Amino acid sequence: MNFNLKEAMEILERTPKTLEAMLSGLTSDWLHSNEGEGTWNASEVVDHLIECEKTNWIPRMESILNDQERKHFPPFDRFSHLNGQESKTIEQALQEFASLREHNVTKLKKRITCDQLLDLTGIHPEFGEVKMRELLSTWVVHDLTHINQIVRVMAKRYQTDVGPWKAYLSILQK
Amino acid sequence: MNFNLKEAMEILERTPKTLEAMLSGLTSDWLHSNEGEGTWNASEVVDHLIECEKTNWIPRMESILNDQERKHFPPFDRFSHLNGQESKTIEQALQEFASLREHNVTKLKKRITCDQLLDLTGIHPEFGEVKMRELLSTWVVHDLTHINQIVRVMAKRYQTDVGPWKAYLSILQK
Repeated sequence: MNFNLKEAMEILERTPKTLEAMLSGLTSDWLHSNEGEGTWNASEVVDHLIECEKTNWIPRMESILNDQERKHFPPFDRFSHLNGQESKTIEQALQEFASLREHNVTKLKKRITCDQLLDLTGIHPEFGEVKMRELLSTWVVHDLTHINQIVRVMAKRYQTDVGPWKAYLSILQK
Repeated sequence: MNFNLKEAMEILERTPKTLEAMLSGLTSDWLHSNEGEGTWNASEVVDHLIECEKTNWIPRMESILNDQERKHFPPFDRFSHLNGQESKTIEQALQEFASLREHNVTKLKKRITCDQLLDLTGIHPEFGEVKMRELLSTWVVHDLTHINQIVRVMAKRYQTDVGPWKAYLSILQK
């Protein structure tokens, strides 16, 4: 086991800056390319991250910290960002994500005041009992997963363009 | 085919900033974790990118632009960054990469002045004849591949910590 709160926050704090450096100002072709029908483009991934900041990590953390007997997680729809979005630029979306994340990391710091709290549990709708440390580790890995996805989706725009080098570029085979 | 020089440069110019946002100031445990023996950690990936700026992309571009009859690429050892490195901090490495990249993108802009040059060819030691547009597309995808790798390697530190969520996090299965 490697999780500790300080190191986890290092990643959580960096994700908005990483995405900003990577995506802000890019042409639409990079931002709206996807891996085929039913897959997400870079811009949709940012919308999904925004949705998670609003309805997933912190509400679930609060549910675990809650003193009630049954700590069922509040509902979360991982596709909700695809429905009824108002149109916004990537810069606006990145700014919204950065601001929500900053607020949430502050809340995390304020609420998780000792390691004992990491052993508290909540009820995941599918997995059943899960620990606080598992939820917070997943938050970190979820960030990294979606950075990984954005980068892979963008790389695939040049799937054919790279010619014979494709054999050496495993990202294009995923 | 999707390659065009302007869009390719958008990615090439962003990579140093992306890596800086992602890695600068991280604790050693994030920077030096790898995927097992013989695999690279985040810090080694940055060293590899530095090496490519020095001995791969621009020398190969120049070799293609060169007027000589046989345009064999100059030698490139993709493991050379693992041997005899002087010790430097991640911030120093990121700074070195950013500075080499800036210099190389300037050179790229200066040398590739029209689309006709994208059809010129050189001789790759393994693939034989390759086009300028394939080399430059590969430069872009190579950046994205290694960002993808760094993110995957870091995510794997929490392979066990995420508990049952592992089933949903495909990055941990790669």
